Amino acid sequence: MRAVTIIDGALEWAEHPDPVPGNGEALVKVHAAGINSGDRLQVMGFYPAPPGSPPDIPGLELAGEVIALGSGASRFQLGDRVMAVVGGGAQAELCVVHERHLIGVPDGVSWEAAGGFPEAFTTAYDALFSQADLALGERLCVHGAAGGVGIAGVQLGVQAGAEVIATVRNESLRDRVASFGATVVAPEDFGEHGPFDVILELIGGPNIPTDITSLQTGGRIAVIGTGAGVKAELNLLDLMLKRARIHGSTLRARSLEEKAVAARAVETHVVPLFADGRLTVPVDSTFSMADAGSAYDYFKAGGKLGKIILVP
Amino acid sequence: MRAVTIIDGALEWAEHPDPVPGNGEALVKVHAAGINSGDRLQVMGFYPAPPGSPPDIPGLELAGEVIALGSGASRFQLGDRVMAVVGGGAQAELCVVHERHLIGVPDGVSWEAAGGFPEAFTTAYDALFSQADLALGERLCVHGAAGGVGIAGVQLGVQAGAEVIATVRNESLRDRVASFGATVVAPEDFGEHGPFDVILELIGGPNIPTDITSLQTGGRIAVIGTGAGVKAELNLLDLMLKRARIHGSTLRARSLEEKAVAARAVETHVVPLFADGRLTVPVDSTFSMADAGSAYDYFKAGGKLGKIILVP
Repeated sequence: MRAVTIIDGALEWAEHPDPVPGNGEALVKVHAAGINSGDRLQVMGFYPAPPGSPPDIPGLELAGEVIALGSGASRFQLGDRVMAVVGGGAQAELCVVHERHLIGVPDGVSWEAAGGFPEAFTTAYDALFSQADLALGERLCVHGAAGGVGIAGVQLGVQAGAEVIATVRNESLRDRVASFGATVVAPEDFGEHGPFDVILELIGGPNIPTDITSLQTGGRIAVIGTGAGVKAELNLLDLMLKRARIHGSTLRARSLEEKAVAARAVETHVVPLFADGRLTVPVDSTFSMADAGSAYDYFKAGGKLGKIILVP
Repeated sequence: MRAVTIIDGALEWAEHPDPVPGNGEALVKVHAAGINSGDRLQVMGFYPAPPGSPPDIPGLELAGEVIALGSGASRFQLGDRVMAVVGGGAQAELCVVHERHLIGVPDGVSWEAAGGFPEAFTTAYDALFSQADLALGERLCVHGAAGGVGIAGVQLGVQAGAEVIATVRNESLRDRVASFGATVVAPEDFGEHGPFDVILELIGGPNIPTDITSLQTGGRIAVIGTGAGVKAELNLLDLMLKRARIHGSTLRARSLEEKAVAARAVETHVVPLFADGRLTVPVDSTFSMADAGSAYDYFKAGGKLGKIILVP
């Protein structure tokens, strides 16, 4: 097979041996694979693939077709349309995925949308619901809402009956984010729009002091991105008086069984809304995997709303 | 009635009108009331009583006898031995308490032990179990374990089947804390004794960076004291990679119904162990309420293990 391949910090479309599905695994012919910021970090050498994933092929999510099954794999049939979060290796013609990590792609959903769905929606669902217990009628603040996870968080919050306030730095993207049902505000003003029951923190350290002072009593902060810095000043007395909690998490470092649990939660709670169109994956553009370098450059430039999808 | 009374930052044993129980309330003749650090802060003017509590009578916990009932109060009978966390006013001959905040004192438990039980054990139970989900077989670190809440946390952790590591600054108190079932270590060394699933943080800001690096994946920190400082440096990436969470809480600011929920949890999960001696309240000394000034001075001096109890 050919795969997007990291060679000395650059990307090439190179030959690799076809991967072979082991016990409980499926071989997926990839039709679409989203680019995520974790991929960029991996190319730059900051975010090595976890054990069991190819070290030199990026790609944390894919959608495609089951074309072979390892022994004991029984959740899907040959030809089934599937999607998944993987530890790496998605940006390739073929990828082996454990069947417990696969989720069926609903009929009528395009390959491009399915290829950009798993990482963002699994991350956002896990942070908002499995960690921060977002509930009907609460007020949710999503920081960095124009990104893939941000837009997923906005949509999930709206669908779950929360009032969603979204911060978006790029003024030209604010109307698009608002069209998903959020009240969009400038990042420097968000403290005036509280109190919030839940904050989805995709920006990082500089936001934390105002996050805490703008929390409702009993509020929760889920930190899943730190683009603006990892260091935060935390006033413990504020945290105590608000009876608040701060969660941190990543998906990639989780064990096989934890990833399977996350996939089952998405299958149960998120996929039905993707199937009937209540949740959508905005796709900004599609590039050929052979031209991955251009796609990554375009991704890096920012200023867009929606996923950048690679196709073989 | 007479009550310990804050007058210009000093304590006097002064006359007050007898309080009258309202709807759903009981009038308690106080037999013992523990001193807590919140009382000291209140006397110094830093921690005003919440609405509904007497502003000038300290005391966050009491044990005593029901001597009158307001209309509709039916959980207890006249003469019943009860204890409670209250918003203030416990260090007096009489105190009105909502019946939903009262907990029965088990037979055979002394007034002094009962008067020093509610605040520490409710705080520690709430932090360890309601927030941090401490579970069988986990490793718990209790910082500041020689204090009232610390000793309660050590005992609760041991009884719940956790392995308990306790930090105690005062060397002379370490053997006593160890006698409750903890491995006692010097505060500056605790990072070498991880990883911990749960950390009960009673010291504050300076501990937070090492708390996080010594957490197990999925670990929880419950912050309920900040004696060494409220400001903490938080590395969000460490928090994410550990998939950790930090809780802050206080009991005193909670609503009537939240305090009732906390009291029911203690009644169900903690009182049975207090009744049969698996949990104990070490009492350092007992003072007359008329001599509260001396008791507070003694409390302030530190270096002891066990509660200081006031009796009328």
